[in-house]
Amino acid sequence: MFYPQIDQDDSLILHTDLYEINMMYTYFKKGVSERNSVFEVFFRKEPFGNGYAVNAGLSHVIQYLNNLHFKESDLEYLKETCGYDDEFIDYLRNLKLKLTIRSAREGELVFANEPIMQIEGPLAQAQLVETAILNIINFQTLIATKAARIKVAVGNDGLMEFGSRRAQETDAAIWGTRAAYIGGFDATSNVRAGKLFNIPVAGTHAHSLVEAFNNEYDAFKAYAETHKNCVFLVDTYDTLRSGVPTAIKVAKEMGDKINFQGVRIDSGDMAYISKKVRKQLDDAGFPDAKIYASNDLDEKTIQNLKMQGAKIDVWGIGTKLITAFDQPALGGVYKLVAIEDKDGNMRDTLKISSNAEKVSTPGKKQVWRIQANSEKKNEGDWVSRYDEDPRKFDALFMFHPQYTYINKVVTDYTARPLLHEIFHEGKLVYQEPTLKETKEFAANNLDGLWDEYKRSLNPQDYPVDLSQKLYDNKVNLINNIRSRIVKRGY
Amino acid sequence: MFYPQIDQDDSLILHTDLYEINMMYTYFKKGVSERNSVFEVFFRKEPFGNGYAVNAGLSHVIQYLNNLHFKESDLEYLKETCGYDDEFIDYLRNLKLKLTIRSAREGELVFANEPIMQIEGPLAQAQLVETAILNIINFQTLIATKAARIKVAVGNDGLMEFGSRRAQETDAAIWGTRAAYIGGFDATSNVRAGKLFNIPVAGTHAHSLVEAFNNEYDAFKAYAETHKNCVFLVDTYDTLRSGVPTAIKVAKEMGDKINFQGVRIDSGDMAYISKKVRKQLDDAGFPDAKIYASNDLDEKTIQNLKMQGAKIDVWGIGTKLITAFDQPALGGVYKLVAIEDKDGNMRDTLKISSNAEKVSTPGKKQVWRIQANSEKKNEGDWVSRYDEDPRKFDALFMFHPQYTYINKVVTDYTARPLLHEIFHEGKLVYQEPTLKETKEFAANNLDGLWDEYKRSLNPQDYPVDLSQKLYDNKVNLINNIRSRIVKRGY
Repeated sequence: MFYPQIDQDDSLILHTDLYEINMMYTYFKKGVSERNSVFEVFFRKEPFGNGYAVNAGLSHVIQYLNNLHFKESDLEYLKETCGYDDEFIDYLRNLKLKLTIRSAREGELVFANEPIMQIEGPLAQAQLVETAILNIINFQTLIATKAARIKVAVGNDGLMEFGSRRAQETDAAIWGTRAAYIGGFDATSNVRAGKLFNIPVAGTHAHSLVEAFNNEYDAFKAYAETHKNCVFLVDTYDTLRSGVPTAIKVAKEMGDKINFQGVRIDSGDMAYISKKVRKQLDDAGFPDAKIYASNDLDEKTIQNLKMQGAKIDVWGIGTKLITAFDQPALGGVYKLVAIEDKDGNMRDTLKISSNAEKVSTPGKKQVWRIQANSEKKNEGDWVSRYDEDPRKFDALFMFHPQYTYINKVVTDYTARPLLHEIFHEGKLVYQEPTLKETKEFAANNLDGLWDEYKRSLNPQDYPVDLSQKLYDNKVNLINNIRSRIVKRGY
Repeated sequence: MFYPQIDQDDSLILHTDLYEINMMYTYFKKGVSERNSVFEVFFRKEPFGNGYAVNAGLSHVIQYLNNLHFKESDLEYLKETCGYDDEFIDYLRNLKLKLTIRSAREGELVFANEPIMQIEGPLAQAQLVETAILNIINFQTLIATKAARIKVAVGNDGLMEFGSRRAQETDAAIWGTRAAYIGGFDATSNVRAGKLFNIPVAGTHAHSLVEAFNNEYDAFKAYAETHKNCVFLVDTYDTLRSGVPTAIKVAKEMGDKINFQGVRIDSGDMAYISKKVRKQLDDAGFPDAKIYASNDLDEKTIQNLKMQGAKIDVWGIGTKLITAFDQPALGGVYKLVAIEDKDGNMRDTLKISSNAEKVSTPGKKQVWRIQANSEKKNEGDWVSRYDEDPRKFDALFMFHPQYTYINKVVTDYTARPLLHEIFHEGKLVYQEPTLKETKEFAANNLDGLWDEYKRSLNPQDYPVDLSQKLYDNKVNLINNIRSRIVKRGY
């Protein structure tokens, strides 16, 4: 019988694409594996047509990098399957993380075409970690962003993550709910996520409780006799004719013995039913009992239900959030921007593409968030060479990286760098905030954004501009490579 | 500093919705937690408008159930956070799996509205495992089905899974690629999946190798001097003018020292470029060198490229497969179908919904695949009460469960049960096949399906019919509950 050995001799170090290790092998054999290199992570478009993204995933990346070493079974596998020689296997065995990682913090707003993470250090190591970093950051940033969109739609209503059963396997469920919490959710149904991340957990009962007791009265009564806080699920048979009246009956019988928090509906027309349920609860003397709703909801259905006057107080969001249903992947990429040459100097690198917007921006960078002091709102982001510092300028010239005639001069601003050192030559130097602090940080960052960028449909484009030096360097490098190709005749 | 304790004191037993444990508490306190119950997993619609689904996920479910016990830190968390009393915590501490699980095998074709897994045993235990089982089965079945669709599109071309960087966190990457392998993929780029599941791994190099060596010639040469099998990525600067000519140059220089397997293109118009590349390779004397393509491909783009005569031999599929991009969730549910009453008799249970197709089918069931002996093709599935056996009949009356006037009588058939015992009262009794056997099993099962059901667009509806007994029982139970609601006046 074949059993995968997960939990026994598994680690994430092999959670990488084979080509990364194939390249490490070439670098090692060619004596360039230890050359200093700089890779950057960025995405080319905000997901869901949104005006911003909420950065998440750093915590898992830290865990991953903190545990990065090959086990003997990993080395055995690589030797047998891929035919690497002993010298290389020994090199892997002795591999010790030397990378310096700079990253936007979790809960930071991030935008297309700016680095959100920067990986600097030995070429072979930087290559090894590409796949896992993208895997983690792409997913968690996607979900935190989806969550923020939904949070904008619900306003101050309660917001719960109920998606575990539809998540894309187990990690997605727990890291996804953590990202959702950062993006604005209040609680999760997933108990493991609650334990691991200290997220409030929520949940009452399912239809099966009602079916197990064979009727709603006995089921609600049994639940009420065993739980202080009660939300009854009222749509097992017939919400308005059976579910809600029975919930009211039990709530009246139990009186002060329970906190009758409300009822949950999980099917039917939410606008119509919620208004009827509200009236039934009010008429019965429970104006404070809340209506919880869940049923394939997302920011669009929520906005529509609210426009129709639906009386929903707490929203349970599952599938559409946890899978980012309308766009289930963020296309974050990991690109080499600089490499040490044989003389020890750093050389900027470029990838050219037939799509203009896919041409990478060479060089090691920093991202600066420029905020006008008068309004306390962002003017945009200014991407610079790593050694430029706009805090030393009196005025900042900001121009669109493609349409350069769209530009402005900003004065009286505050510039805040986005990339912070997380690992310094392999050593963790970053003190992670608590998850609650991260959640508050995200909410505060959203306050710094004009409403025009937060609109869920067709938001205004947030400026992500390049410094003059960065721009000139890019244009020069493109021209150099193009002329080299022409000169060689192919 | 806060660190989630993953890898330290984490297990999947808390990977459940809080309401499951809240219900367990009520069951326990009301003395019904050990009553026998039967839950069934099914979905209501095949994903992607497909005509079938490929069952996957059982292996992970087995792992999960084989390791099901509460750790002290889990119990501490539940006590502190949810306020359960010591008696219940002790009950959880001593919980030992007693469930009998029956399931369709991995690689089995499964259809909407038939049980694909059946969980029988103590009510509280069956409730506990709902969330994780759905989480696992929903995702893996989704991906295996997507993979099968893509496999149909590529025919006998090579098919590789390249999606790790876009997967929804780490579990999705590895279990997703395992499901893709079952569904028809040949290999994966994920090394960890290769090690854990014994899936062939594939991959060569990225653009960064070219940039690190500063030009394609030095990069390809370095790669060729360190690897026997060579596929060169040719679109870093200019595929036709630089990438392919350089690959050819290096291949000629290296001669027999390498296996020049071909080139990979990752951008540009695949139809146009692949035809030009094919000509360049053929003209240079490399008619056997293959063209590998990757770039947001799925079954639709593949079909289109093939119609345009694209010269692609091997397809690398990432995002669209691993996230099931066009429908990233399968809506599998877990419903109570029977429960022991206080006298020890089993009672069938029902959930009514305002949507007719959402009304569940009561009672413990078996699913039979009916195959005509003459054609060796499936006539459809026949869902029966668990104790019915169509192998004892000479003729089988099959009718549509909603449009009952659509029916047929089948004779000279073979009936094969789909649900097999995996756990018997908590003990694993199923011998898992190897993954390769499972993959072959899936391919053989597809051979039993008429092409009309395999069409990617608007396939014919595969019959999933109910036995007369099952149907009559459902109608009776619906009428009973409806009349009870009317009688009570609400």
